[in-house]
Amino acid sequence: MTGVGIAGATGYTGYELIRLLERHPQTELVWLTSEQSAGKKYSDVYPGPWDTELVALESALERADEVDVVFLALPHAQSVAPVRAFHNTGVTVVDLSADYRLQDPDTYAQWYGLAHDAPDLLDRAVYGLCEVYRADIAGAQLIANPGCYPTSVNLALYPLAKAGWLQPRIIVDSKSGVSGAGRKPKLPYHFVEANENISPYNVGYRHRHIAEMEQVLGQANATQDGYAFTFVPHLAPFNQGILSTIYVSVTAGVREADIRALFAETYANECFIQLLPAGVQASVRHVAHTNHCAISITPVNPAQADGADYIIVASIDNLVKGASGQAIQNMNIALGHEETAGLL
Amino acid sequence: MTGVGIAGATGYTGYELIRLLERHPQTELVWLTSEQSAGKKYSDVYPGPWDTELVALESALERADEVDVVFLALPHAQSVAPVRAFHNTGVTVVDLSADYRLQDPDTYAQWYGLAHDAPDLLDRAVYGLCEVYRADIAGAQLIANPGCYPTSVNLALYPLAKAGWLQPRIIVDSKSGVSGAGRKPKLPYHFVEANENISPYNVGYRHRHIAEMEQVLGQANATQDGYAFTFVPHLAPFNQGILSTIYVSVTAGVREADIRALFAETYANECFIQLLPAGVQASVRHVAHTNHCAISITPVNPAQADGADYIIVASIDNLVKGASGQAIQNMNIALGHEETAGLL
Amino acid sequence: MTGVGIAGATGYTGYELIRLLERHPQTELVWLTSEQSAGKKYSDVYPGPWDTELVALESALERADEVDVVFLALPHAQSVAPVRAFHNTGVTVVDLSADYRLQDPDTYAQWYGLAHDAPDLLDRAVYGLCEVYRADIAGAQLIANPGCYPTSVNLALYPLAKAGWLQPRIIVDSKSGVSGAGRKPKLPYHFVEANENISPYNVGYRHRHIAEMEQVLGQANATQDGYAFTFVPHLAPFNQGILSTIYVSVTAGVREADIRALFAETYANECFIQLLPAGVQASVRHVAHTNHCAISITPVNPAQADGADYIIVASIDNLVKGASGQAIQNMNIALGHEETAGLL
Amino acid sequence: MTGVGIAGATGYTGYELIRLLERHPQTELVWLTSEQSAGKKYSDVYPGPWDTELVALESALERADEVDVVFLALPHAQSVAPVRAFHNTGVTVVDLSADYRLQDPDTYAQWYGLAHDAPDLLDRAVYGLCEVYRADIAGAQLIANPGCYPTSVNLALYPLAKAGWLQPRIIVDSKSGVSGAGRKPKLPYHFVEANENISPYNVGYRHRHIAEMEQVLGQANATQDGYAFTFVPHLAPFNQGILSTIYVSVTAGVREADIRALFAETYANECFIQLLPAGVQASVRHVAHTNHCAISITPVNPAQADGADYIIVASIDNLVKGASGQAIQNMNIALGHEETAGLL
Repeated sequence: MTGVGIAGATGYTGYELIRLLERHPQTELVWLTSEQSAGKKYSDVYPGPWDTELVALESALERADEVDVVFLALPHAQSVAPVRAFHNTGVTVVDLSADYRLQDPDTYAQWYGLAHDAPDLLDRAVYGLCEVYRADIAGAQLIANPGCYPTSVNLALYPLAKAGWLQPRIIVDSKSGVSGAGRKPKLPYHFVEANENISPYNVGYRHRHIAEMEQVLGQANATQDGYAFTFVPHLAPFNQGILSTIYVSVTAGVREADIRALFAETYANECFIQLLPAGVQASVRHVAHTNHCAISITPVNPAQADGADYIIVASIDNLVKGASGQAIQNMNIALGHEETAGLL
Repeated sequence: MTGVGIAGATGYTGYELIRLLERHPQTELVWLTSEQSAGKKYSDVYPGPWDTELVALESALERADEVDVVFLALPHAQSVAPVRAFHNTGVTVVDLSADYRLQDPDTYAQWYGLAHDAPDLLDRAVYGLCEVYRADIAGAQLIANPGCYPTSVNLALYPLAKAGWLQPRIIVDSKSGVSGAGRKPKLPYHFVEANENISPYNVGYRHRHIAEMEQVLGQANATQDGYAFTFVPHLAPFNQGILSTIYVSVTAGVREADIRALFAETYANECFIQLLPAGVQASVRHVAHTNHCAISITPVNPAQADGADYIIVASIDNLVKGASGQAIQNMNIALGHEETAGLL
Repeated sequence: MTGVGIAGATGYTGYELIRLLERHPQTELVWLTSEQSAGKKYSDVYPGPWDTELVALESALERADEVDVVFLALPHAQSVAPVRAFHNTGVTVVDLSADYRLQDPDTYAQWYGLAHDAPDLLDRAVYGLCEVYRADIAGAQLIANPGCYPTSVNLALYPLAKAGWLQPRIIVDSKSGVSGAGRKPKLPYHFVEANENISPYNVGYRHRHIAEMEQVLGQANATQDGYAFTFVPHLAPFNQGILSTIYVSVTAGVREADIRALFAETYANECFIQLLPAGVQASVRHVAHTNHCAISITPVNPAQADGADYIIVASIDNLVKGASGQAIQNMNIALGHEETAGLL
Repeated sequence: MTGVGIAGATGYTGYELIRLLERHPQTELVWLTSEQSAGKKYSDVYPGPWDTELVALESALERADEVDVVFLALPHAQSVAPVRAFHNTGVTVVDLSADYRLQDPDTYAQWYGLAHDAPDLLDRAVYGLCEVYRADIAGAQLIANPGCYPTSVNLALYPLAKAGWLQPRIIVDSKSGVSGAGRKPKLPYHFVEANENISPYNVGYRHRHIAEMEQVLGQANATQDGYAFTFVPHLAPFNQGILSTIYVSVTAGVREADIRALFAETYANECFIQLLPAGVQASVRHVAHTNHCAISITPVNPAQADGADYIIVASIDNLVKGASGQAIQNMNIALGHEETAGLL
C-alpha cells in the first residue's frame, strides 16, 4: 500500500483528495494536516466517515517517513518551504499550489511579486499536465500540479500549438464554479451575491494563470514567438466546474477535418480526454465529479472553415481534473499505479 | 412628499427598502446610515443609480427634523436606544429589528437574555402585522415590524385561532432563502456550502420567533390556554423567500368548507393575501419579489376532513412581506398613504 | 467478473448505475436497454466515455444468459412482466421500480389502483433495505430496491420502532432534489419554475411511499397496531438529495441518552449510516454523491427530553442510497461481493 | 388612462409585462390573449392576483378599439399578420417578436429563411432601442422591440461605432439565464440538466441576433464597411439576466480616458444606463429585476491602453431591459408618458 499524507487537508481540494483516495485500491491515508483545526477530527470539519485526527504541518514533517507520497494543498507562496522539506526526506511530492509550476524563477518573480526561495528545485519539478508530460512524470520525485484554468486551456490548445497551426492571438473566456475561490467566506462568494449572478473578475489584469498557458504552449512549439492571451475569468453560480470558450485562428490551409484528425491522433489513447463530435458542445455537467476534459471544436463560419477562426470549448471539473483528480493521476503515473486508479 | 431616513441601509433589508421606495410616488429618501460605510456613496456598496452619501447614525439623529419617517434596519438589541431617540423627536418610527415586537418586557428578557432598556416604550409600540392590527397601526408613532418567519405563520393561523378552531399542538417546518441570514459572509452561507444543500438549524432550540407566534395567536384567542409550537427552520438554496409548512388539528365538527369560508371572510379585502384554491399549493416562486402572502389549505386525509388534521402552507418573500415591504405597508397605513403605494 | 445488464438505462437512475459500476472492480456492463434510444450509442444520450449501443428490452431478454445480474430501472407497473421474465432465466434481479416492494398484493392494488400480475412472485421478492434485511438479501434471486423517500424515513425510525419506543403519530416533511422527478421535461421541473423556488406537492394525498414505511416499521414492531403517517414531500432547487425532517414522540421513560445508545448499537457495524453527534444536523451536502445516510436526533425541548417529542432528520442522495447505490449494495450482498464495492 | 392589450400573455415576457404594468400609474389592462389557455383565468396559469380571463387572439382583434396600445409577445414569424391587423386599426403597436426588427426584407429572408409577408410595413416600423432611436420612437405607431442579446451588445458598442473608433473584428461571449429560452419544457432547460452547468449553444451558427447588431452599428457609422461578429451565446444557471463580455479593438490614438468621456457624454441623460467606474465590473445581479443596463470598460493591458484591445462588459435583465421593460419604455416614449413610469 502507498501511504499518503495530505498537507492542507481542510480546503476543498483537500476534501476532494480524501473522497477520491477512498476509492483508490492501493493507497491508505496516514496523516492529514491543518494549522487551524489541528487536534480536531476531520469529521468535525466535514461531517462524514473520517475519524482521522488533524495534525499541524510541523508534526507531519516529523512523520514524513510514514508515507510514500505527500500532497500539498496549501496557499500559494506557503508551499515553497514545506515542499523542499518533504522532498529532502525522499518522499514523492505532488504540490497543488502554484509555487513550482513556472520553471523560470524570474517568471515566478514577475507574476507573484516575490523571489522564489528554492530556485534550485524548479529544475527538478515536473509540470504535471499528465497528457502532455507523462514521460517526465513517471518516476518523478517532485510534481507541480497544474492550475485549473490552464489545464482546460492547455489541453484544448496543445495539439494546435504542437502542430504549428495556432495563430498567436488567443482570447479565452472562462467560467468557473465558486469552489475555485476556496472555502474562506468572503462577500463575492456569499450565497446571495454569487447566486443568480455571473460576473467577470480580474479583467485587464494579467492573471497568473496566463504564465502556465504561455509556458506549456511555448514548449509545444518553440518556433512560434510566443502567444498573446486575453484571458477573462468569470465567477458562475455552480459549485464545481470550469468551461473555457476559446477564440483562435488557425494557419491558412488547415481545414476542420485536419484539426479533428489532429486531436483524435494526439489524444488517441487518453481515457480522460473526450473529443466531442461536431454539433455537440462541451458543458460542465458532463464532466462534473469526473476526471475528464471534454473538448469541442467548431469553425466560426462553417462555410469558411479553411484557415479560419475557430471556437474551441473545453470543460473540466475544477476540483478534479483541475486539481485533486489530476494530482492523483500524477501520483499514479509517478509510482506506476494504474493511471485511472481512484479516478473512475 | 414624505421624507424618509433609513438607519442601517446597507444590509439586505435596507437595500430592499431603497428599491421599493424608488417606486413610491409620495416619498423621497433624505438620508441613509451605515456605521461601516459612512462617507461612501451608496453605489459603492451596491452598484446602482444611488449617489446618496452614507452617514453615521449619530449624524442622522441630528437630522431627524429633515424626515417624516425613519426605518431602522439594525441588528437586534442595537435598535432599542436609537428607536427611543428618533421617537422622542416626533418622527414616525418603523423598527425592523425584534426589539419592540414583544409587548411584555419579561418575555423579551426571557427570549433575548437581557433586560429591555426602554420598557415604557413597549406599551406604545404597535406590532405591525398589517392585516391583523391595521386599526392600531393607523396614526401610530412607533411600529415594530414583524419577523419574517412569524409573518408567514401568523397570517396562516390567525383566522383559525380567532375562530377558536385551532388545537394547541402546532408543528411548523419552515424553509428560508439565504438572504434571511444577512449579508455578512459566514461559512454556512458560503455559496459552495449552501448551494445544492438544504439543512435544518436551531433544531430543539426555542427559536425567538416562536414568541411572536405565541403573542399574536394568544391575542387572537384569549380563551385558549396557549399554543405549543414545534418550529424547525431550514436554510434552503435560493435568495429570497420563506415557505412554512404547518401541521395543525382543528376542532371536531369543523369541515374543510368551514375553514375555506373562514379564511375567505377574514381576508376578503386584503389585496396582499392570496388564498389558493384546493389543489394548488403555495410556493416561493409566485410570491418572490412581491408583498404577497400565499396560503393553501389541505386536509391530511380528504376522506376525513371533519375536525381533523390539516396542512396549511404559507409563502412570502422574506425581504418584502417578511421585512421591507411590510415596513412600507406599515408606513402607508400609519401616514394615510394608499396602502399599496410602492408595493405593486 | 459479474456480467451486468441494465433495463431502462437512460433515466437518471440508469445513468447513476453506470457511473457507479465503472468503479466496481468485479463487474462488467454487458448490455443496456432503452426503448426510445435503441440503436443509438449511450454517449449519444449522455456525452461521455460510453460507446455501448443501446438495445431494446426484447433483445436484452434474449441475451439474459450473458449476464449474472439485471438491474431494472423502468417506470412503475412496467416492471412486473420483465422482472418475471428475467427471474425465470435464473439471473439475479434487482428491480428499482415499486412493483415488487409491497408484499401483500391487496396493498399493491389499493395503492397503485391495479391488480398485481405476478402475485406469486411477491413472496419470493426480498425488500432490499440493506441495513434491515441483509440476512434475507444474501443469496436472494429477486430484490425489490426501496423507494428514495422510504429509505430515508425507515432508516431514521427503524431502531425506535423495533425497540417499541415509537408513538404511532408521525409527521414527515421531506425535501427532494429535482432528479427525483425523472428526466422527462415537464413544467414544474423546467429550470425557471423550479429554481429560486420550493413547493410542496401531493399534499393530502396518501403518497404511495407511505406503504413502504408502514410495511417496514410494521414488521419491525408487530405489537404496535400500525403507524399514522402524515407525509408532505417538497420539490427543492437542487439536483440530488433528500432531507426528511421527522416529528415523532417516544414512550414515557425513554431519555435522549437511551435513544442515542439504541441507534449506536443498531447501526454499530454499518459503514453507510452516519449518526451525527448532538448539535450537528443532517444536511444534503454531506451525503450528496455518496451512499451514506446521515441521521441526527434532537429533542424538541432539551429540558424535557424524557418520553417527549423528538426531531429526527435523515438525509441521503436520492439517486445513490435512494436508488442506484443501494441497488449495487443489494447486488453486492446477494452475490457475496464486498458490500462497499463500487460505493466509495 | 392608456388601455393595454397583450397578445401572447402567458409566456415569460407576457408575465413580466403584466407585473411591470401593475406599477404603471397611467395604464390599465383591457385584454390578454393566449391560444392555449383561452377561457381560463390568468391566475390559473400564474398563481397571483390576476382574475382576467384569457381570450383568443381573434377575439382580441375584434376588441382592438378598446385599447390604445397592444404588446405582442408571440413567437417569431407568427407576429407578422397580427401586427398588421392591429396596426390597421390605428392602435399603437409594440411587437416583441423579431418580425419587424430588420428593415430590409431581404435580410429578413436571409436570416429567417422565409419571405416577409408585410414588407411595406417594415418602412414604418421603428427599431425600439430607446437610448439610440428615441426621437423616432416618439409618436411612432409601430415599434419593433429589440432582442435581448442585441440590446446588451448594441448599448455597449454604439458610442464606439458612432465615434468611428470601433475596429471591425468583434467577439461577443454572452451568458443568458434560462428564461431566455421561454417557458416550454425541453430537455436542455430541464432543471437537472441546466443546473450546475453552463454550456455554449448555436456555436458556429450565424445567430439571428447578429443581424440586429450589424443593423444598429452599421447605422451608427455608415463609413465603416460592416462589422465581423463572432457571437457565442451560453446557457447559464440562473433565471433572469444576460452578461455579454465583448472583445474589441479601438483605433490607434484613442485612450481609455477618451473612451470613458465618450460613453459619459453619449449616455449623460440616460437614467437606465449605468456606466461603472474603472475596477468595477458589470454583473447580472445588480441589474436583475430592473430596466438598467450596466456597462464596464477595461483595457486588456492597462500599460498599453492607447488604441488597443478592450473588454466591454454589458449586463441587463433579459426579460426587463431585454424585453418587457424596454417595451414599456417604448410605449412611454411613443405616447408621451414619463419614460420611467412602471420601470422603477
